[in-house]
Amino acid sequence: MQQLILNPRAERRLKLGHLWIYSNEVDTKRSPLKGIAPGTQCEILESNGKSLGFALVNPNQLICARLVSRKGPFTAKQLKRRLENALALRERYFSHPSYRMVYGDSDGLPGLVVDRFGGYLVVQISSWGMENLAQDIVDALTALVKPVGILLRNDHQGRKVEELPEHCEVAQGEVPEMVPFEENGVSLLAPVYAGQKTGWFYDHRENRARLNQWVRGRRVLDLFSYAGGWGVQALAYGASTVTCVDASAQALNWCEENATLNHRQSDLITIQGKAIDAMKELIATGERYDAIVLDPPAFIKRRKDQKSGEAAYRHINELALRLLERNGVLVSASCSMHLASDTLLEILRGAGRHLDKNISVIGSGGQGADHPVHPAIPETRYLKAHFVHLTGTTQ
Amino acid sequence: MQQLILNPRAERRLKLGHLWIYSNEVDTKRSPLKGIAPGTQCEILESNGKSLGFALVNPNQLICARLVSRKGPFTAKQLKRRLENALALRERYFSHPSYRMVYGDSDGLPGLVVDRFGGYLVVQISSWGMENLAQDIVDALTALVKPVGILLRNDHQGRKVEELPEHCEVAQGEVPEMVPFEENGVSLLAPVYAGQKTGWFYDHRENRARLNQWVRGRRVLDLFSYAGGWGVQALAYGASTVTCVDASAQALNWCEENATLNHRQSDLITIQGKAIDAMKELIATGERYDAIVLDPPAFIKRRKDQKSGEAAYRHINELALRLLERNGVLVSASCSMHLASDTLLEILRGAGRHLDKNISVIGSGGQGADHPVHPAIPETRYLKAHFVHLTGTTQ
Repeated sequence: MQQLILNPRAERRLKLGHLWIYSNEVDTKRSPLKGIAPGTQCEILESNGKSLGFALVNPNQLICARLVSRKGPFTAKQLKRRLENALALRERYFSHPSYRMVYGDSDGLPGLVVDRFGGYLVVQISSWGMENLAQDIVDALTALVKPVGILLRNDHQGRKVEELPEHCEVAQGEVPEMVPFEENGVSLLAPVYAGQKTGWFYDHRENRARLNQWVRGRRVLDLFSYAGGWGVQALAYGASTVTCVDASAQALNWCEENATLNHRQSDLITIQGKAIDAMKELIATGERYDAIVLDPPAFIKRRKDQKSGEAAYRHINELALRLLERNGVLVSASCSMHLASDTLLEILRGAGRHLDKNISVIGSGGQGADHPVHPAIPETRYLKAHFVHLTGTTQ
Repeated sequence: MQQLILNPRAERRLKLGHLWIYSNEVDTKRSPLKGIAPGTQCEILESNGKSLGFALVNPNQLICARLVSRKGPFTAKQLKRRLENALALRERYFSHPSYRMVYGDSDGLPGLVVDRFGGYLVVQISSWGMENLAQDIVDALTALVKPVGILLRNDHQGRKVEELPEHCEVAQGEVPEMVPFEENGVSLLAPVYAGQKTGWFYDHRENRARLNQWVRGRRVLDLFSYAGGWGVQALAYGASTVTCVDASAQALNWCEENATLNHRQSDLITIQGKAIDAMKELIATGERYDAIVLDPPAFIKRRKDQKSGEAAYRHINELALRLLERNGVLVSASCSMHLASDTLLEILRGAGRHLDKNISVIGSGGQGADHPVHPAIPETRYLKAHFVHLTGTTQ
């Protein structure tokens, strides 16, 4: 097997438990990256020749290798065991088979995501290493959970970066357009072909569960609603009305479909348009809400977006606070890995002070148990949601 | 009213929303602190003479003043409104009247803590400012929630620092030794006279609720158990057995009492002794647990304890991981304000690597909604709990 030798001291991060190797950490004089076929497994050596383990390599990437084993080459048998471990974790913490079953690095399978919707699996592969193992992955998943169907949603942005071909295909059995599943005890449908990512965002499950406790008889505003993860659940938990705002008409159709499934379609209001425009309009017409969910897409995708992204979070959070009733709750979320939880808190502090409103944070949540955080890989921890209570004007 | 003038630029923190003034921020040439009676209300002025609001002053303290109002002097009427706001928040998020009803600075009442146990209130006052208002506080609480009894637990460490007399007395009605309340739907008793602080630690409520979902039929170890907040709840939620470890025989008696109340006393095992000694003994005898709660007292009380404190957290977390079954969960908590959540995560990472165990963090929690975080006062956010899943040996 081919070997990659690291520069002196470049082994440190791996020894701490991280799995990534950057291209500038490889001693390319002793072990050229050039010529290695993307997806090849290589042994990784410290500068002094000691083995650190085995990695799947893509020589054209900044992160040019990801460790998949510290003890012997990574085999189909090990792949199977990793999937078994990932499933054991979910079965330990979830009673219904609706969850992210495999979460990349955190499950020792960098480049692989599998979301489970009851009998259906949606797979996303984002590295050449996993791409080469695609058939083994499908076979192992089939043996492990005997799904009705497996969909490969290999048409996402991440593949472009890795120079992988984009396609979407059923790899096993049959998969309908909308697949049934449940979250927090609510029956829902996920648009697994046409939706974003795998069709659903399971990551906010616990934050939604927290909000669900507090919505009975309340007016809820769900901004950037997508298919109704927050809004339809709030309806199912007894919200008096829910207003879903999304730029996509299709997303709002999915909201309608999910609300109908829960017999609450008559209390769903949809507004198609940009969240900022909708908020300004609602402020102008004097609408106010008991609970507001602000769960925008990542405004800070790269470090260079930091400043403008923070300003954007500040802006929408101020607008949301202006729409909130006294004693109401704002769920202020961010999925930007580059926005620290404390920074979002600071943005909320600033927004409250600027509006002369007295706010306090009654809870802060992150990813659910199906998106486990790898303690050595900060990149696996990206989601945050602060629950902000509005007491009233500052006294 | 007496005025305190701040040094140039010392107003910045207050303008950001914080409430504390340090003695070295006061321009004592223009407005001497000396001679002000502890607890006096003073107007706070910027260096340029502009009013910042009103504060309760103790000239003998490092934090010599805490802002209680930005708009006009703080009066009994304002005190009443703050208590009403605090109650409104709890009534919004809790269905049963068992909670921290007032949480100091976060509720605009620095130096005051009120825990509510159904019909009983336990009050802790830790500043001269609030001490002077004690009768107003008791009167307002009586009018607001019509309690069966109010206990002043004014015998805690915090009062020594403030040079307040220590005493414990019933201020209104009657209060029994053990007061009934509930947490996460479980009936419990709190030792309000003889227990630590107010008798109960409500702050971990949500973290306990998270664990409660996962204990049915499992063997649980509750270290530093106190009166059974975690352990007895786990029994009530169907744990097969719970082992409570505490240095105090009295605490273990309270565990027994609480387990009996839930008809699970026969599945409670108690070990009196130091947690570290007990863990070493349990490791030696080969005991292993499906769920372990590690909720120690604050090991880092002051900045100078940082290094030794972190080492102590590392040590007990390693011991706990050695007692954990494969696919088991460790709840690793800390109430040290000086230990950041990320630092505890880093400690867990180090412990896992050292033991060659593959761990992931399936959830991270903080204080419940009755301990709201003031977004401008980091000191109000002190509690953290990481839920650590053990996959097995590193592969």
